[in-house]
Amino acid sequence: MDRTDCERLDAECKLAGCRARFSLPEGVLYFDGNSLGALPGTTASAIRRTIEDEWGAGLIRSWLDADWFFLARRAGDAIAPLIGASEGEVAVSDSTSVNLFKLAASLLRRGGAGRKVVTEAGNFPTDVYILEGLVDLLDRGHALVRADPARIADEVDEDTALVVLSHVDYRTGALHDMEAIAAHCNALGVPAVWDLCHSAGAVPVELNRWNVDYAVGCTYKFLNAGPGAPAFTYVSRAAIGDYRPAVTGWFSHAEQFRFEDGYRAADSINKCLVGSPPVLSLRAVIDGVATFDGVGMEELAAKSRRLSGLFIELADERLAEHGFALASPRDPARRGSQVSFRHPDAYAVARALIARGLIPDFREPDIVRFGIAPLYVRHVDIWDAVDAIEAVMSDGAWRDFRTDVREAVT
Amino acid sequence: MDRTDCERLDAECKLAGCRARFSLPEGVLYFDGNSLGALPGTTASAIRRTIEDEWGAGLIRSWLDADWFFLARRAGDAIAPLIGASEGEVAVSDSTSVNLFKLAASLLRRGGAGRKVVTEAGNFPTDVYILEGLVDLLDRGHALVRADPARIADEVDEDTALVVLSHVDYRTGALHDMEAIAAHCNALGVPAVWDLCHSAGAVPVELNRWNVDYAVGCTYKFLNAGPGAPAFTYVSRAAIGDYRPAVTGWFSHAEQFRFEDGYRAADSINKCLVGSPPVLSLRAVIDGVATFDGVGMEELAAKSRRLSGLFIELADERLAEHGFALASPRDPARRGSQVSFRHPDAYAVARALIARGLIPDFREPDIVRFGIAPLYVRHVDIWDAVDAIEAVMSDGAWRDFRTDVREAVT
Repeated sequence: MDRTDCERLDAECKLAGCRARFSLPEGVLYFDGNSLGALPGTTASAIRRTIEDEWGAGLIRSWLDADWFFLARRAGDAIAPLIGASEGEVAVSDSTSVNLFKLAASLLRRGGAGRKVVTEAGNFPTDVYILEGLVDLLDRGHALVRADPARIADEVDEDTALVVLSHVDYRTGALHDMEAIAAHCNALGVPAVWDLCHSAGAVPVELNRWNVDYAVGCTYKFLNAGPGAPAFTYVSRAAIGDYRPAVTGWFSHAEQFRFEDGYRAADSINKCLVGSPPVLSLRAVIDGVATFDGVGMEELAAKSRRLSGLFIELADERLAEHGFALASPRDPARRGSQVSFRHPDAYAVARALIARGLIPDFREPDIVRFGIAPLYVRHVDIWDAVDAIEAVMSDGAWRDFRTDVREAVT
Repeated sequence: MDRTDCERLDAECKLAGCRARFSLPEGVLYFDGNSLGALPGTTASAIRRTIEDEWGAGLIRSWLDADWFFLARRAGDAIAPLIGASEGEVAVSDSTSVNLFKLAASLLRRGGAGRKVVTEAGNFPTDVYILEGLVDLLDRGHALVRADPARIADEVDEDTALVVLSHVDYRTGALHDMEAIAAHCNALGVPAVWDLCHSAGAVPVELNRWNVDYAVGCTYKFLNAGPGAPAFTYVSRAAIGDYRPAVTGWFSHAEQFRFEDGYRAADSINKCLVGSPPVLSLRAVIDGVATFDGVGMEELAAKSRRLSGLFIELADERLAEHGFALASPRDPARRGSQVSFRHPDAYAVARALIARGLIPDFREPDIVRFGIAPLYVRHVDIWDAVDAIEAVMSDGAWRDFRTDVREAVT
C-alpha cells in the first residue's frame, strides 16, 4: 500500500464526487468534520438570499412568504431519512443541550416508579450536566447513575426512570448496539433518549426499525449546517401522542397565532419547538443536509469504515513507535466515523499537527481524535495525514507545543 | 400640519441620518420593526465573511481565531448600554422563551415561602405558557396569577414566589413603571423577571438604576438582529453570585473544555448560557446593535414619542370616522414605541394595508399595530401611512380582505 494505491481507491470510489459539494481550503487536511462540518458550496449564496431578499426586501412577510415558519419542520424532514425516521418525526430547533433537557424533563415528569436516571461514564459532558441539573431542579429523589458503557443493560432495570446514551462515544468513537439496548429498555417500559451528535450522517441509524422513541442530535458536525446550527429532536410517531412538553413556548402551541391565554400543545412534533428559531442558522441546515442528496447511508458508512480501517492499518505500521495507542475499537462494526489515539502528549501533538495544516481534535485528557467525514475525506487524505503525523513526530518540533494552556472546541 | 411640515421635521431631526444605516425596500412603509427590525446595511457582508472566511477557510479554528466563543458575551456587552446594564451582565443565547424558562426555573427552585407566580393578563402568550408549563413541571403547589396590569403591586405580596412582566404591552404599547414595581418587589424580597422584547432599543430602560435583577428580551425587533436571532438574558452583578442555573449546559460550566464529569457553574453571566450558539444568527446581533452607535436612548425615545404623538394626532383627525379607536395610551410617558388601534375588521384592514405597501401588524382579536422604529421611521412616513389608511378605508377595497383564515407573525 502506498499513496498511488490511495489515489486508485479514490478514483474507484463512487462517492468521490461528493467532495466537490464543499468549499474546502487549500493546503488543509481536515479531520475535524465531527466538530464542525465543512462549508457546502451552496450555503453562502442561500444565506445571502435569505438576508437580502427575504429579510431585507420581504421583511416580516417572509415568515410566511419565504416559509420561515416551516423551516424547523422542513429541516427535520430532510434529516429524517439519514436517521431512519419518518416524515413529521423530526424538528430542528435550539441546541442539543436544550433539546435533551426538554425530552428528559418531559419523560421524568411523566414519572414511573423508577428512581434511577441511567447515563454512561464518559458520556459527552453537557448531556450529563443537563441531567444533573434537571434531577436537582425536579428534586424528586432521582439518582443519576453513570454506568459502564459496556454494561448498560445490567444497570437498566425496573428501578430506572430514564436512560440517556450517546450512540457514538465522542472520545473513542465506540458505537453502542442501539437496537439491542432499545429492545432491553422497551421490554422494561423504560424511556431512552439517544444522543446522535456523532452518528447522524456518519453511521447507519435506524430509529424506526430499532423501535427508538426519543433522540436528539446536532446538525453542525457530519450534517454540515455550520457553527452552532440548531439541533434536532426526534419523537417517534408512536410516542408523540403521549408526549407532554415541559418547556411550553408558543411555537409548540396548537394554534400559535390565536394568542390564547392558556397553553394547549400541538398534536405533532411541533410539541418540541419553543421560541422563534434563528432563521439564518436554521436555513443553513437545509444546504448542509442537501450534501447527502442521492447518497445511501450504508454506502457512506462503508466508505467511512474503509477510511478508518486504512488509518488504523497505517498507524499500526508507522505511528505506534511514536507513542500513539489506538483508542478506537478495531472492530469496524463497533466504530463510529473517527479514529482516536491516546498519546501522553496529546495536546502538544494536536497543536503541532494543526500548525502543519492537519486538523484533528484534542480531547481531555490524552486523546488525539481524527474525525472522518466520508462525504469529503479521501483515501489520499488518510495517507497524507499519517505522513504528516510521522513527520511532526520525527522532527521533534511538536515538543515546542507543550504548554499548560489548553483550549479545545467541539 | 401637512406633508411639507413633516419633511421639515425630518430635515431638522438629528437622528435622520440613522435611516441610511439600513437597507430598506423601495415603495414600502414599514411599521413592523417591532416584529422584525429592518436589515442593517453591514449585515450581509459581515455574515458572508463569517461563512466564507471563518467557517469555510478557518473551519473549527474559528471558534477561537474568529472569537465565536466570545460572541455571546460580546453581543451582550453591546446591548448592555441600551438597557442600562453594565459590562458582564448580559449574554445572548437561545430564544426569549427558553431564557425566561431558565430564569424562572432557577428562581422558583430557590424557593421562598411564596406560592404565587404573578404575571399579567394580556402578557405575551409565550411568557405565560412557559410559566404555566414550569409550574406544572415543578409540581410544588405554585399558582399562576394573571393580574390586572394596572394593579400589579396589589397582587405582589409575601405569598408571591416570582413576578414576570413585560415592560411594554405587545398589543397596546402600554408601558409599565418598571422602577416603581421593581421597588415594590425588592421591598418584599420577591424576584421579578422583566421581558424587554418591546422596549430594548425603543424606550429608555435603566436596569441598574432601577435595581432590576433579572430580564430577558429579544434582539430581532428594535435591535435589528434578524429573524429569530438569539435573545438576551440579564442578571445583575448583585444577583449573579447567588444565581444557580437550572438548565446546566456545558457553555455554563466553570471550565467547559476540561470535560469534567461533574457540573460546576461559571461565576459569571455565562451561567445563563447552555449549548453551542447559532453563530450565523448570533453574529448578526453585532451588526444589529451597531445601528445604535452614537445614539442616546433618551434622544431616540423622544423621537419615537414625537412620531407616535403625530400618528395619534393625525388619526384623531382623519381615521376615527373610519372606525379606528386608539388602543395605545395617550400619555407619551406611558407609551412604548408603537401606536395601536382597535378596529372591528382589524384583520381585513391590516391585510389591505399590506397589499398597498404599508406594513403594520394584526394582533388578536381586533388590533392593528403600527410599530415605530425611531432609527428609520420618519415623520413623512407617519403622514404617508395615515394617507394610505385613509385611502384604503375610503375606497372600500379593504372589504375584499375579510376572511376567516388568520395568519400573523410576531
